[in-house]
Amino acid sequence: MLKITIVGGGSSYTPEIIEGFIKRYNELPITHIDLFDIEEGRYKVETVGALAKRMIKKSGLDIELNISFNRRASLSGASFVCSQMRVGMIPARIEDELLGHRYGMIGQETNGIGGFAKAMRTIPVTLDLCRDIEDICPDAWLINFTNPSGIITEAVLKHTNVKVIGLCNVPVITQYGIEELLGKNIQVQFAGLNHFIHAFHVWDNGKDRIKELLEKMCQGEDFELPKNLGKVEWVPEQLMQLGALPCGYHQYYYKQDDAELKELKCENYITRGEEVQAIETELFKLYEDLNLDVKPKQLEERGGTYYSDAACELISAIYNDKRTLMHVNVRNNGTISELPNDCAIEATSVITSCGAMPLNLEPIVNPAIRGTLQLQKAFEELTVKAGVTGDYATALQALTINPLVRKGTVTKEILDDMLEINSKYLPQFKHSAIR
Amino acid sequence: MLKITIVGGGSSYTPEIIEGFIKRYNELPITHIDLFDIEEGRYKVETVGALAKRMIKKSGLDIELNISFNRRASLSGASFVCSQMRVGMIPARIEDELLGHRYGMIGQETNGIGGFAKAMRTIPVTLDLCRDIEDICPDAWLINFTNPSGIITEAVLKHTNVKVIGLCNVPVITQYGIEELLGKNIQVQFAGLNHFIHAFHVWDNGKDRIKELLEKMCQGEDFELPKNLGKVEWVPEQLMQLGALPCGYHQYYYKQDDAELKELKCENYITRGEEVQAIETELFKLYEDLNLDVKPKQLEERGGTYYSDAACELISAIYNDKRTLMHVNVRNNGTISELPNDCAIEATSVITSCGAMPLNLEPIVNPAIRGTLQLQKAFEELTVKAGVTGDYATALQALTINPLVRKGTVTKEILDDMLEINSKYLPQFKHSAIR
Amino acid sequence: MLKITIVGGGSSYTPEIIEGFIKRYNELPITHIDLFDIEEGRYKVETVGALAKRMIKKSGLDIELNISFNRRASLSGASFVCSQMRVGMIPARIEDELLGHRYGMIGQETNGIGGFAKAMRTIPVTLDLCRDIEDICPDAWLINFTNPSGIITEAVLKHTNVKVIGLCNVPVITQYGIEELLGKNIQVQFAGLNHFIHAFHVWDNGKDRIKELLEKMCQGEDFELPKNLGKVEWVPEQLMQLGALPCGYHQYYYKQDDAELKELKCENYITRGEEVQAIETELFKLYEDLNLDVKPKQLEERGGTYYSDAACELISAIYNDKRTLMHVNVRNNGTISELPNDCAIEATSVITSCGAMPLNLEPIVNPAIRGTLQLQKAFEELTVKAGVTGDYATALQALTINPLVRKGTVTKEILDDMLEINSKYLPQFKHSAIR
Amino acid sequence: MLKITIVGGGSSYTPEIIEGFIKRYNELPITHIDLFDIEEGRYKVETVGALAKRMIKKSGLDIELNISFNRRASLSGASFVCSQMRVGMIPARIEDELLGHRYGMIGQETNGIGGFAKAMRTIPVTLDLCRDIEDICPDAWLINFTNPSGIITEAVLKHTNVKVIGLCNVPVITQYGIEELLGKNIQVQFAGLNHFIHAFHVWDNGKDRIKELLEKMCQGEDFELPKNLGKVEWVPEQLMQLGALPCGYHQYYYKQDDAELKELKCENYITRGEEVQAIETELFKLYEDLNLDVKPKQLEERGGTYYSDAACELISAIYNDKRTLMHVNVRNNGTISELPNDCAIEATSVITSCGAMPLNLEPIVNPAIRGTLQLQKAFEELTVKAGVTGDYATALQALTINPLVRKGTVTKEILDDMLEINSKYLPQFKHSAIR
Repeated sequence: MLKITIVGGGSSYTPEIIEGFIKRYNELPITHIDLFDIEEGRYKVETVGALAKRMIKKSGLDIELNISFNRRASLSGASFVCSQMRVGMIPARIEDELLGHRYGMIGQETNGIGGFAKAMRTIPVTLDLCRDIEDICPDAWLINFTNPSGIITEAVLKHTNVKVIGLCNVPVITQYGIEELLGKNIQVQFAGLNHFIHAFHVWDNGKDRIKELLEKMCQGEDFELPKNLGKVEWVPEQLMQLGALPCGYHQYYYKQDDAELKELKCENYITRGEEVQAIETELFKLYEDLNLDVKPKQLEERGGTYYSDAACELISAIYNDKRTLMHVNVRNNGTISELPNDCAIEATSVITSCGAMPLNLEPIVNPAIRGTLQLQKAFEELTVKAGVTGDYATALQALTINPLVRKGTVTKEILDDMLEINSKYLPQFKHSAIR
Repeated sequence: MLKITIVGGGSSYTPEIIEGFIKRYNELPITHIDLFDIEEGRYKVETVGALAKRMIKKSGLDIELNISFNRRASLSGASFVCSQMRVGMIPARIEDELLGHRYGMIGQETNGIGGFAKAMRTIPVTLDLCRDIEDICPDAWLINFTNPSGIITEAVLKHTNVKVIGLCNVPVITQYGIEELLGKNIQVQFAGLNHFIHAFHVWDNGKDRIKELLEKMCQGEDFELPKNLGKVEWVPEQLMQLGALPCGYHQYYYKQDDAELKELKCENYITRGEEVQAIETELFKLYEDLNLDVKPKQLEERGGTYYSDAACELISAIYNDKRTLMHVNVRNNGTISELPNDCAIEATSVITSCGAMPLNLEPIVNPAIRGTLQLQKAFEELTVKAGVTGDYATALQALTINPLVRKGTVTKEILDDMLEINSKYLPQFKHSAIR
Repeated sequence: MLKITIVGGGSSYTPEIIEGFIKRYNELPITHIDLFDIEEGRYKVETVGALAKRMIKKSGLDIELNISFNRRASLSGASFVCSQMRVGMIPARIEDELLGHRYGMIGQETNGIGGFAKAMRTIPVTLDLCRDIEDICPDAWLINFTNPSGIITEAVLKHTNVKVIGLCNVPVITQYGIEELLGKNIQVQFAGLNHFIHAFHVWDNGKDRIKELLEKMCQGEDFELPKNLGKVEWVPEQLMQLGALPCGYHQYYYKQDDAELKELKCENYITRGEEVQAIETELFKLYEDLNLDVKPKQLEERGGTYYSDAACELISAIYNDKRTLMHVNVRNNGTISELPNDCAIEATSVITSCGAMPLNLEPIVNPAIRGTLQLQKAFEELTVKAGVTGDYATALQALTINPLVRKGTVTKEILDDMLEINSKYLPQFKHSAIR
Repeated sequence: MLKITIVGGGSSYTPEIIEGFIKRYNELPITHIDLFDIEEGRYKVETVGALAKRMIKKSGLDIELNISFNRRASLSGASFVCSQMRVGMIPARIEDELLGHRYGMIGQETNGIGGFAKAMRTIPVTLDLCRDIEDICPDAWLINFTNPSGIITEAVLKHTNVKVIGLCNVPVITQYGIEELLGKNIQVQFAGLNHFIHAFHVWDNGKDRIKELLEKMCQGEDFELPKNLGKVEWVPEQLMQLGALPCGYHQYYYKQDDAELKELKCENYITRGEEVQAIETELFKLYEDLNLDVKPKQLEERGGTYYSDAACELISAIYNDKRTLMHVNVRNNGTISELPNDCAIEATSVITSCGAMPLNLEPIVNPAIRGTLQLQKAFEELTVKAGVTGDYATALQALTINPLVRKGTVTKEILDDMLEINSKYLPQFKHSAIR
């Protein structure tokens, strides 16, 4: 018996992960898949669950797929638990973005005000899930791809005994993009934080081709980023000075002003949340079609491409002790020596049956990379603490030092606004003394 | 023979430092004071030099005061060299502030665009001065209070063999302010960077009263900051969360938005440079009065109060091996273990005849303080490097990560604008490949 | 009221500390001195107490001296507590040395088997004393000069809330010796561990004369060490390679073989403990003389010269916020960045009313100094842990890595022998599972 | 074309490496093997070379094997260079051991006086080899299994641009031994220095079974170590306290006394060098047999079992980008955060076409492991420096802090004796000022 439990099973991504499991059946002989969701998600999980069943049926494989609204029952016997939930669903995300816009800031679902709010909503549910895992399937691996993935992973690492690995599709996409430019033969070594990584090395048979890559990019060659990120126009001299390739999300830092102009000064701007909402509605309409028994092409527009496939690959790599190099979120333990030992980082790691072991990285000597990384981690540490304790001052401090958030008297207004909007999802702030 | 050479002798502060020397003559028996300045400063140095001579005459002390336009001659025989120069004089400062305003940013002469531009102008002259010191009076102490004091000190520490200590009046004023609130008996322990320090401990007979101080401040008690800083309205919950008292300049970070609103949205805003210009004109009118033989009261409005007095005290502490605790800029050497060993920090240090030895500090555990400090130091490191090498990309990177500067396409425009305006003061950028 | 409580008041050193207090009465107006000792020490404390009273009487000062056998009563009202106790008295020390000799090792009362055994006997009593201090006089400073001073200080720092400073006479004597060679003007900066320090800098008006000192010593110039250490014949090339002056106790490491030959191969070798026993007997015979009202000259042979005087000076420096530089045992906090933050180090520190603040030290680049220091601290950490917990395996490990102790099957025999001999002083090992 | 050059091709181990290459021909299609040796090794390289040719002929593979006495020619076109040389051949090793015995110390070819002397002889030849590699085949990987492997690797890493990986059979043997006890499924994670590693983790499907392993060993279960190491009787309480399994060579530290007794007090003790000499003579007699065309069984007694096989596996893992986990010597870069970044460590690493990337390790909290490791690395750093510069004082310091060497006046005698005996192999010490 090999059982996978998917928390947030009603996600529109589910067909991708199911496809991934089917494709890998030879190496990963899954016997049970459990799609767990909450009552509010009944329509979604039942719709996507029915499609999943059709996909499995078509494959002819002996996999039993279950839909469940009882988390503890769903966890029973699981070897792997995938977390892909969205507390408050898409409407909460739209609110996050609108909150940002109200105060003249971008929404940014992972590192900005949006990511902060999402962390506050998600940390309590995740810790609760982990208590159940500790209780019911303590040997299971938790594969987290719920955003903000690095922050959620750090909360689990610091406050539970669950074996967790955090996933993100950004390094996957970037690795593919670099392969386009330099050839399949290369292995990228990333390090940093979730949505805040640099490619430090592009290994090709013992040679590091990072400088060649940067030069190509300065000469205008580029690769495609996910739709929500668009094309980033790096300043060439800056790119060469870095000596490392920033990820797409770094545009919010190295080119914050341009990003803000694009999002805030644009007439008729539609939030990413609303876009996603529309795509989802359309997707679920497709999913309802009883003749559909494959993952529809349209899913690829959803933004999270490769996410679910990376999750399947990660599970298979653990299961088969594959020694694959993947880019995941793990405990730092000195890998990035400029950051605390006990925090989560995103780094190229070897995946064995023992989990993810990050490859060592030399000290980061460029002050620009080092300094911004240290600040970002400080924001994440405060965010984890605020999310766990519900301490108002810690939350205020987290927002204050976040480079994407306005600082000062207004920060308190932003925080109060966020707490108000999300009040039903924030049990930890209930007794917060101040406000 | 005990000779002090003052580089930038024509400064309007000179009467304060002369007063300080006269006051301390019993313990610091100076025989010669040399006021060195460049030709462009002839009017100022001759005017203030004449006043200084009258002050000495009135004191009846046997101090010979010289005015000099030959730096090497002026350094000859010096035991202490005070640097208080302003490359480009006040007009350059006004330009710095206007530059900021043109791009919707505050000017900020030490940590913002203003401080960056001033560093670019000042580093080449300072290194040149240090070559002369190494040559002519290698045993002399360089007491630097030219701004940005921490950055200039780091440039000297990293690129010369001169014995240097950097000074700033911010910790002095803050110490006095805290004494007002808690009583004379206390000793504040500061650490951080110039204009970016926190008071971590308020020692009172082995007890740390920092928490009591913060509580008082949250209850509305406060002390006066220099005129240019004004009153800072800290958010109480934030102050308590920090567990340490930020300095006045921290308002530009913890309350950046408020500071920007105040400076940029204000009608008829007059730059600090213009204010200073006006004060200076008035001061020099006073200095011209041949009957004046004391430091005029009006100098206290100039903003740099205690600066020159702190310099006199520092010189006396070294000369007399006084073991005084002062707050100065020195090599880090692990004092703040979260920052590189070889950078300059501002920290409470014991002053002996051997110079300034920083007191040890426990690790900084608050992520908010740690993260912002690490980012600020990264900015300073890049600034020092850009100022020494004239490397365009390093300069661009420094501005990009500075939290007070706009980031992205516009950063290049700001930098190009700055380089254009200041071109005659920036020999190091002459051959800068890019632009 | 200013009260000093001396724990181990019956020590033969007491006349020196009394003399120190009398000498400093003008700056340190003590009103009460309490000599506390246990019943077993009644003869000694009453004898030396009577002498102390005669000394005070002769001085004409208004100091009340008390002898007490009730520790809690004795602590009441104390501002300073001096610990100079010897658990098991001198016979235990003789046993320590004989234990070493039985197994072909030197006894070494601070870093060797002797120091380890003494730590095991002393830690429980000291922690017990600290519980009383926390209870009765929580604001008092504990000045510890009970050996092994660094280990005892670390135990107090890690396991109590008492404000403690550890003292040793080795750096004092070394500073005096260096002054003999280079002149009074100098300030030595030491760092390391108790009985394991190097002089890293010899500051003279901002210049470092350490190299000059080492060269002088290589040319045969030297200064006198305490009688128990004798003259050390450093290998000149080694001394120059170190670039720092080892303390006298370093002969047991850099010249371990010579030290062992001297102590173990010598016919009719008399242990230092037996020598001390003889001196003590003679001293107490002198102390009994009712006409004696000064500290007798003979006390200087006792080895601990300057110890008590340094204690008086330290107390006065705290009391008067003197800002004196002294060499004391304090929490590391990154001063020596190659050692853990939370351990005790011995380092030149500024003494204020807030206690001892170590001066910063640059990283230790010489691998020889760094590596031996790190090993020695590892021994001390294990020793503290074994002394507090009574864990047999930790004790075994501490001895195994101690460079002065034989390693292997024999280490267990040595440990068992030590535990047997000292059983009545080692309550913490009572339930030690193994043996 | 895929060429392997073997420096020290006349080694008695060559048949093992040839066998390894033949066995792996399918995955590692070698076209050329060059056995390089110096004139003094002509008999050996011609004898073993002839055997190698017979082995290849028997295999029927299309591999061209060459014997060469011209190093630069031999390196031309090489993709991998294996270094297995022995400067001074076995007689020098015997001298090393006898030198130790003359002064009452064990010989210890890797960490003791023997290893030190061997390093002094080998570093100059290795650096010279590296100059040729840089010149002729700069892209080649240097696979070093010349002892002391970690020290040689560090010298290459610090003083050349050659891509180097150091190998040792100790972790290989230990991994196999642990598999015997716990089953094939496990992956050991080692870290430390060459001949000074601990097994920190025994991963089994995400669980760490290290404690179970230690408990088994305390109950008397054990695995076989190479003949020269014999069985180690660990003290159970010590093993449990370590929480990690020391390697066989650690008996010289944790049980130094027992090891010394065994080697020094034994009548008719035959040095390992003499044993090896005898085995070698016998082996070469076998190799001369023109009918022999396989690796003879007797080679397994030679002590270096698995060495050459590990080298073949390492080469194949690089060539095929295998992602195998192997235990190799690489640059630390913070992997062991308690050691300098730029030193060599031995650690479990993932092998890719880009070389060896060490897996991250959590901080080492046990003071016993940490302290001894730091001291050992300090010895190695000094040894590398002495080997490169020929600085007498650095050499003296290295020996002084080596825990297996006697310290003091005698250390200079030992060093002088070593320099005398080896004078023809130590060009770097020729101008050493002192002696």
